[in-house]
Amino acid sequence: MRFTKMHGLGNDFVVVGPEVAMSPELVTRLCDRRFGVGADGVLAVSKPGDRVRMEYWNADGSEAEMCGNGLRCVARHAVDSGLVDTEAFVVDTPAGPKRVIVRADAVSVELGPVRVESSVVIEGFDLMRVDVGNPHAVALADPERVDLAVSGPAIEHDPLFPNGTNVEFFKPVSDTAVTMRVWERGVGETLACGTGMVAVAAAARASGHVNPDAREVSVTVPGGMASVSFGDGVWLTGPALTVFEGVWLSEPS
Amino acid sequence: MRFTKMHGLGNDFVVVGPEVAMSPELVTRLCDRRFGVGADGVLAVSKPGDRVRMEYWNADGSEAEMCGNGLRCVARHAVDSGLVDTEAFVVDTPAGPKRVIVRADAVSVELGPVRVESSVVIEGFDLMRVDVGNPHAVALADPERVDLAVSGPAIEHDPLFPNGTNVEFFKPVSDTAVTMRVWERGVGETLACGTGMVAVAAAARASGHVNPDAREVSVTVPGGMASVSFGDGVWLTGPALTVFEGVWLSEPS
Repeated sequence: MRFTKMHGLGNDFVVVGPEVAMSPELVTRLCDRRFGVGADGVLAVSKPGDRVRMEYWNADGSEAEMCGNGLRCVARHAVDSGLVDTEAFVVDTPAGPKRVIVRADAVSVELGPVRVESSVVIEGFDLMRVDVGNPHAVALADPERVDLAVSGPAIEHDPLFPNGTNVEFFKPVSDTAVTMRVWERGVGETLACGTGMVAVAAAARASGHVNPDAREVSVTVPGGMASVSFGDGVWLTGPALTVFEGVWLSEPS
Repeated sequence: MRFTKMHGLGNDFVVVGPEVAMSPELVTRLCDRRFGVGADGVLAVSKPGDRVRMEYWNADGSEAEMCGNGLRCVARHAVDSGLVDTEAFVVDTPAGPKRVIVRADAVSVELGPVRVESSVVIEGFDLMRVDVGNPHAVALADPERVDLAVSGPAIEHDPLFPNGTNVEFFKPVSDTAVTMRVWERGVGETLACGTGMVAVAAAARASGHVNPDAREVSVTVPGGMASVSFGDGVWLTGPALTVFEGVWLSEPS
């Protein structure tokens, strides 16, 4: 079984073609970091008609609707593998069609729409609720000083969020740039989260912590840097890299 | 750059040929589990003369003398890649020449000599000091009930071990079988440790917790099971599996 290992901002994926019959058991075996290939999830890329299609499974075998860093990897892979011969195209995802643009140094994907909603106070943090198709709670707080392992789960599981929430802490570093850390719902701290970066950029604009008219906001996460642009939709632009090509040999254990 | 990903009892390695110029920086990049291939260490396998040679680097880039699970992977790889055409041969390691036997279902490697030394009491545990070329402190204690994250480092850094020590807790499950967990010096808890399994088997025999005349002791670690046999040297027999073949594409980041 052939596969490609890719990452976007340290969020890493095993990417396979449509010939692979995926199952939760195979996903968990592939994603195991010692007995398998090791990844946050598996992406299947295909082109059943005239459009590229993406499917995504989390490392625990569950299927997920969207993954911003995974979508960037899918877009890069579709170009690298010759599925498309254009840099701007549409990828069909379980969350609907998404526009992508693949350039040599970065891949842009359309996320959102994003909506900054009400504020709530939990654990002493003034949190903005942000909807990016999934729920986020965003607070202004120095990411280096927040005890994320304590505050993250406390906010995630607060009764105000009956379905849980992703949690982000950010601070502005210029008029158009922020740094942040993210606590992902059901996962814990991660090196990067595409929708979380969009949520923070939108919240920072809405609250005036960066220029509210900024067309582009740079967002630094532990896994690297990307930019969020606002205009014709909300776009996330950042790296999507192929690390290695592989042939999986392991028999069922 | 071509490589092979292998593991022995969940102790996992990137295996490369002699054509790769290894450096601490390349080792750490390869071993990074999100931005690289991901592994506990890198093994270089070559055959400069008429004997197979192994070199080993830990994930932090430091060179190490011996790794029992790595040696099993090297032996398997030497056969699979056609470096040798016999199942029993010698591998030259930085710790000296080691005999190996490669079979379809398991690989045996000679470790030791092993020497069970004095007993000491630390943190309430009655510990046997065992030398397998590196230091071990072995205690009879239910591995499931020990708080390894507390007791492991406390014993590792006790003044009685000025150079530190590996720490193992075991319990017998039959006259010829034990289960154990290991705290590796400088690393922390790992899924398996070749010399630690040998140390525990020897300590269990010497203390009568298994049959002192047992020629073979089964040892179960979190990563799986292997056996330690005593006779013409001390041998560790267990799985060594190839998970995938890869071609590394990543440019320096």
